Amino acid sequence: MSSDADAAASFDRGLLSPVAVGHDAVVSDDGVLAALVRAELGLVRAWSALGALPGETADSIAEAWESLVIDVDSLAESAVGGGNPVIPLVPLLKNAVPPEVRTWVHRGATSQDIVDTALMLISRRAVDALVAVLTDVEDSLSAFAAEHRDVVSAGRTLAQHAVPTTVGYRAVGWLSGIRRASVRLRQLTLPVQLGGAAGTRASFLELGGPAAGELPERYAEALGLDHTVAVWHTSRWPVTELADALAQTTDALGKLAADVVTLSRTEIAEVSAGVGGESSAMPHKSNPVAAVLIRSAALRAPQLAATLHLCAALAADERPAGAWHAEWPTLRELLRIALGAATHAAQLTATLSVDPHAVARNLALTRGLLVSERLSIVLTPLIGAERVAALVAAAGAGGDLAELIRDLPECAGLDIPDLLDPAAYTGDARAAVDRATTPADGTEEERA
Amino acid sequence: MSSDADAAASFDRGLLSPVAVGHDAVVSDDGVLAALVRAELGLVRAWSALGALPGETADSIAEAWESLVIDVDSLAESAVGGGNPVIPLVPLLKNAVPPEVRTWVHRGATSQDIVDTALMLISRRAVDALVAVLTDVEDSLSAFAAEHRDVVSAGRTLAQHAVPTTVGYRAVGWLSGIRRASVRLRQLTLPVQLGGAAGTRASFLELGGPAAGELPERYAEALGLDHTVAVWHTSRWPVTELADALAQTTDALGKLAADVVTLSRTEIAEVSAGVGGESSAMPHKSNPVAAVLIRSAALRAPQLAATLHLCAALAADERPAGAWHAEWPTLRELLRIALGAATHAAQLTATLSVDPHAVARNLALTRGLLVSERLSIVLTPLIGAERVAALVAAAGAGGDLAELIRDLPECAGLDIPDLLDPAAYTGDARAAVDRATTPADGTEEERA
Amino acid sequence: MSSDADAAASFDRGLLSPVAVGHDAVVSDDGVLAALVRAELGLVRAWSALGALPGETADSIAEAWESLVIDVDSLAESAVGGGNPVIPLVPLLKNAVPPEVRTWVHRGATSQDIVDTALMLISRRAVDALVAVLTDVEDSLSAFAAEHRDVVSAGRTLAQHAVPTTVGYRAVGWLSGIRRASVRLRQLTLPVQLGGAAGTRASFLELGGPAAGELPERYAEALGLDHTVAVWHTSRWPVTELADALAQTTDALGKLAADVVTLSRTEIAEVSAGVGGESSAMPHKSNPVAAVLIRSAALRAPQLAATLHLCAALAADERPAGAWHAEWPTLRELLRIALGAATHAAQLTATLSVDPHAVARNLALTRGLLVSERLSIVLTPLIGAERVAALVAAAGAGGDLAELIRDLPECAGLDIPDLLDPAAYTGDARAAVDRATTPADGTEEERA
Amino acid sequence: MSSDADAAASFDRGLLSPVAVGHDAVVSDDGVLAALVRAELGLVRAWSALGALPGETADSIAEAWESLVIDVDSLAESAVGGGNPVIPLVPLLKNAVPPEVRTWVHRGATSQDIVDTALMLISRRAVDALVAVLTDVEDSLSAFAAEHRDVVSAGRTLAQHAVPTTVGYRAVGWLSGIRRASVRLRQLTLPVQLGGAAGTRASFLELGGPAAGELPERYAEALGLDHTVAVWHTSRWPVTELADALAQTTDALGKLAADVVTLSRTEIAEVSAGVGGESSAMPHKSNPVAAVLIRSAALRAPQLAATLHLCAALAADERPAGAWHAEWPTLRELLRIALGAATHAAQLTATLSVDPHAVARNLALTRGLLVSERLSIVLTPLIGAERVAALVAAAGAGGDLAELIRDLPECAGLDIPDLLDPAAYTGDARAAVDRATTPADGTEEERA
Repeated sequence: MSSDADAAASFDRGLLSPVAVGHDAVVSDDGVLAALVRAELGLVRAWSALGALPGETADSIAEAWESLVIDVDSLAESAVGGGNPVIPLVPLLKNAVPPEVRTWVHRGATSQDIVDTALMLISRRAVDALVAVLTDVEDSLSAFAAEHRDVVSAGRTLAQHAVPTTVGYRAVGWLSGIRRASVRLRQLTLPVQLGGAAGTRASFLELGGPAAGELPERYAEALGLDHTVAVWHTSRWPVTELADALAQTTDALGKLAADVVTLSRTEIAEVSAGVGGESSAMPHKSNPVAAVLIRSAALRAPQLAATLHLCAALAADERPAGAWHAEWPTLRELLRIALGAATHAAQLTATLSVDPHAVARNLALTRGLLVSERLSIVLTPLIGAERVAALVAAAGAGGDLAELIRDLPECAGLDIPDLLDPAAYTGDARAAVDRATTPADGTEEERA
Repeated sequence: MSSDADAAASFDRGLLSPVAVGHDAVVSDDGVLAALVRAELGLVRAWSALGALPGETADSIAEAWESLVIDVDSLAESAVGGGNPVIPLVPLLKNAVPPEVRTWVHRGATSQDIVDTALMLISRRAVDALVAVLTDVEDSLSAFAAEHRDVVSAGRTLAQHAVPTTVGYRAVGWLSGIRRASVRLRQLTLPVQLGGAAGTRASFLELGGPAAGELPERYAEALGLDHTVAVWHTSRWPVTELADALAQTTDALGKLAADVVTLSRTEIAEVSAGVGGESSAMPHKSNPVAAVLIRSAALRAPQLAATLHLCAALAADERPAGAWHAEWPTLRELLRIALGAATHAAQLTATLSVDPHAVARNLALTRGLLVSERLSIVLTPLIGAERVAALVAAAGAGGDLAELIRDLPECAGLDIPDLLDPAAYTGDARAAVDRATTPADGTEEERA
Repeated sequence: MSSDADAAASFDRGLLSPVAVGHDAVVSDDGVLAALVRAELGLVRAWSALGALPGETADSIAEAWESLVIDVDSLAESAVGGGNPVIPLVPLLKNAVPPEVRTWVHRGATSQDIVDTALMLISRRAVDALVAVLTDVEDSLSAFAAEHRDVVSAGRTLAQHAVPTTVGYRAVGWLSGIRRASVRLRQLTLPVQLGGAAGTRASFLELGGPAAGELPERYAEALGLDHTVAVWHTSRWPVTELADALAQTTDALGKLAADVVTLSRTEIAEVSAGVGGESSAMPHKSNPVAAVLIRSAALRAPQLAATLHLCAALAADERPAGAWHAEWPTLRELLRIALGAATHAAQLTATLSVDPHAVARNLALTRGLLVSERLSIVLTPLIGAERVAALVAAAGAGGDLAELIRDLPECAGLDIPDLLDPAAYTGDARAAVDRATTPADGTEEERA
Repeated sequence: MSSDADAAASFDRGLLSPVAVGHDAVVSDDGVLAALVRAELGLVRAWSALGALPGETADSIAEAWESLVIDVDSLAESAVGGGNPVIPLVPLLKNAVPPEVRTWVHRGATSQDIVDTALMLISRRAVDALVAVLTDVEDSLSAFAAEHRDVVSAGRTLAQHAVPTTVGYRAVGWLSGIRRASVRLRQLTLPVQLGGAAGTRASFLELGGPAAGELPERYAEALGLDHTVAVWHTSRWPVTELADALAQTTDALGKLAADVVTLSRTEIAEVSAGVGGESSAMPHKSNPVAAVLIRSAALRAPQLAATLHLCAALAADERPAGAWHAEWPTLRELLRIALGAATHAAQLTATLSVDPHAVARNLALTRGLLVSERLSIVLTPLIGAERVAALVAAAGAGGDLAELIRDLPECAGLDIPDLLDPAAYTGDARAAVDRATTPADGTEEERA
């Protein structure tokens, strides 16, 4: 057996990453390479915006690079010697343009400027894509919550039935976390990096004079990225705030997936995803594959984010010896699995269906005890806490709750069917669904 | 040998946590216990604010609890059976008030409401304390940066001298990260939790009728915490956003500490903290203890935050079986080490001094090659890149840079002393210090 | 409200750590303090074993320290200045003995020798306790597996019923992981540390001459710890191997807890722990508290172990500036939660009961399709894969499997009741239970 | 600009992973695909070894697959639907052989059997390669230690000069950690997985009768992997023990790298790697790239290992919904960076050189105070601790140590040059180097 690719090319094609495959184009190595070139071109454009070189020259450079073919594998290999891919990339880019304009390529920059900016470029695209996909998820969940607003379900705590809730209200909980993550993603600052060799921007000012003071802003404009007053070469909050928001995203999706996995258990069977997974050995199975894959991302993201925080804490000197390098694959993987998890969540929530019979069957499992909290509230003033406990115990031992209550003279005035109706004890659930699914009604997540 | 405490009481007194000892009162177990009681009292006050019970009754409960003595150790022990400390606390609190008002204690609440709210109460205090301490750090660093604005120093990348920077500019980098962390801390939403048994608030509405719909807001007011429209029992972003901001804080402090450790190395000796650590075996040593302890926190925080994200991702059902419980000690530890690290940073930055002779000595170590980037920029147009490389190589092999340049006829017009002066190649450093240390001048960190 | 302790004393009394409370005496701060003193005494004994001081002198020192009362809180506070508790401890220990013997106290040692050795002393005790508790768990699980060897249950993969398994076989899986963890724990090397200021042992040799070359071995003997030829001051494998084994322990216990939580879900209800948890709000609930607490430990341990690995990777110089300090509370917490989790597992497994009716009810949920894999195997040679798939689909749509097969002429010779009997398709399960529960039969876990 | 590959193929070609590029062939996706096919073929061979099918049939299958070309990208894409790559692989493999032998392909297996076994196959090769590379590292370090056995150097603790050590002894510390990691790697159990759909092996026994009880052993033999009595489908110690050993490896390499980075700092300059890294902007720089890349791996590995432990702890049911899937890319990445780090360490240690002048210059920096511990030991009996402290303080303030001692009548008999000679205070360093570098002399690391 042989694959159709040589070893060098096969590094990672996603074979072990089903959660990410197909959703990672913007953050793939081709995407990274394109971003590195875009970051270099942005610098040319920024110099041009300062008037340092004519726009046509910048255009000609852009054109030359447009048609340039760069072998990713070779570049990856030649990146090893100096420890980053920009070192071998710059000569390729210079050689692709006429000698007289080469001086404008990578002008004043250090490798870190280009790598950091390129990673922000792919992050920008990935975050935009992520926000768009999450909007789909939110829309689906909002519709789902509205549709199932009045489907009363057992609420479960510590894996036990507790009190009633509703299918819609549970979905509002999912929605709430995802919306908040979206807000965090939308608020991110994703800035260009332009500090030069040690963050002082000395080279740019040497080359461009005082006018080069505006180079960073021109650079940000050229690339559609944010601009920060301070260079962030060793103050890595743009990376960790991004990581935090991505982990917050997979957290929220992970919560959704955890519930879907539980609710689709054979014994519970309250929900099923329209698109199930087949088993190679058991033809009757339909696995909640999307939820499984989302969950695989949610279990990995926190530790990836931790690595990025660690790198930030170890960003020693004017460029650290290793902590910066550890960021790259970690951040990319985090972007990738967040994108993948969100896309699977979009598919999952678009097809998630509820089996109301199963919901009702489960709701009845405790034979009324699901509302025992309500019984405590209502009956304690009438018969005291001790007798309530005895009543609940008797029901737990097999007694019929309605009958047991009917036998109590103190409870004569009670509407027993209503008292025992789970639907009558769902508190704020219906209103919360309405609030969360009414478009005009902003939530605190959006105001954050 | 015996300690003066019984085993039960000794769980953890900080013996292994020098970074935190003395700075953790608000988050200690006494602080937590007080917060649990405050959370319960807040609920009484909230009911009272709704008009459900007279203010005097609430006052009498407050008074009764004020003088109540609760043994933390016993409470901790009795918390094991049910898995959380509120279960045994509630009867203690009820027994401390007259029977007729007991019904107002813990009214409608579930344990999670109280634990989550109490953790937010200690978080609120800890975050306020942290922000205050960080303000001291920022003030010290701002003064330090201004004072050393013009002290030119070797910039180091990958542990090697790269190009010049300044002591002040490096401090601005520290400042930038810390200010950004402060902003994140100040922006946190630290909300009360009030969802009842499964998040639906059914018990509150059952007990208080529709008016109880405002109970969460009254609860937030009573406790000085934030209010969220959505219950966050299983949507744990208030916890993870807090964790993220705390890790961002220790990241920024860790970067400072890493640099202080390096710069105080015997061979470098550019800075020293006024308050050093003594060694038990080597009387001549003065260890950078504050930086060491800060660093010990910075290495731990990312993984603690990761655990909290993981718990958020695993917040299954209407209350998860373990993920919620894993949050408590993790969040507290994170608060604790952030507070400790910040306090040590305040002490460190207040006493950090610079040895300008050492800075100058190190600056000269590469005998001028520190400005080789500038030489490339200036000389390449005159003699070409190849000859510049040869020149640098000759200097690297021991040649005198000034002489080598003086020998070049093409360079006749150059001001060689200025060309080789590191102070003349610090780029934006001086202006950046001015920007960062001028009070009126907001930075992007503050606008975030 | 006030607690009965002053703020300083309350650092952490376990209020937020129900998994650990009551099971941590050996690793509490009193335990640590006692271990620090034992480590110092061990050094006195080791010098004495070399003949450097008379045994009676060593005895008199031991006696003096026996009655010495040290305030843990004060010691913790005075540990901050130098960054470790040994610095303030040594003068206390010296002052407790006559001036003429003080020279034998802490003789030649550095703080790290004592801290590392003390942590190994508490680790030794904790690991011994852990192995003993795990043995109880193993015995309980072995008995449980044997008892339920023949209870056929639905096997679940990706949360869906897959093929049959047995309750006993599932327990053998739990047992297998726990036994392997036990083996790892038993194989640990927990060595004394004795390197002096920078690991060279120069002070010991200066003070004791060549004979002091044997001091480390004598030290190990005096304390009942292991001895390593190489000093491990910055080669931290004894710490990380311990951390790995502890995490492996909580992994194995976490797997058990995860299954118990699932199997005790209201809808599944196949198992219940004899000792349940009560809910403050819902009198009918019985929460799987032990499993919940075990799980809370299992979710935290991996990140604690990661911190220890990280510290090992950052063990720079002859003693690192922070990485060493970050180890202490992390290792202790890991020991603590492993002990707590194991103890709860012992209680859980001793009382775990099975509801065979629930097991049978769930087994029947797929109305025979649980053996569809077997049907494929048996029927495919007779009717081909396509018709098998159609048959399974028909059964999935509500058809009666037995009837559907009976209608197939090709299947005339089959014993259909046996074919559809889940008990007849449990493979190696019964034999595996017998192997695992037969005392004489060693397993690969034990041979490791 | 365009890369020469389509988007699908570019997932990850190593552009952001310079530490791993070129050293990962065995664990690349081609390697994984080959291992999946080998795992399937191993199963065919195992059935054949049982006599179930003729060896020639097995050979013909092997031959058919040998020439089979499988597109990794397509396979990765088609793996998404079912959540693992074996599901789409099996039909490809079946279609490549004549219809009549297809029944022998994937016979009785579940996807997990093949994925787990394939991951163990690549792990086996990676671990073998790793051990071989580490042997090179050990040989280089052993030679380095022997060569520099007598080069006395400043020992540094908490970043400050402490007492003397030697260059050779420091290398012995590196060696000790790496050897121990090698031992752990060599002791690993890397077993086949063969449990069938839910771990009971029912399918194999159904298909092969009682004889199939030996199938797992035959499977292990066919693939050169280990065999465990117990199925480990949800008892994931083979994965976590591997992860632990890999993290232990990068820990040990990370310690080496951390020291090399420090020791090659411009101000310290005691060591340099023969193969340096060039800077794009500063022609004079020579970055310690190998150490930087090793460090980038060492900072990532602990969190990757933590994820694997977490997955083990969450290995619920008979196959978990996500925890298993999260293992694959995490384990592969850990293998990859360990391999890369080790290979860079081999290159680094083979070319690591020492500048004895720099070592000596640094050694003299404290003007004799490096031996102050020795002075305390020797002088305290003569003049008391207080006067020793004063003497050290006087020297610290600029006094000449030798003169200060010469002025003390009590010290008349001392050999002052020897007393102040750092080389005379290196304790066990020389002997330790001899022990560690003498081939016949086993160390505790090897006996582990």
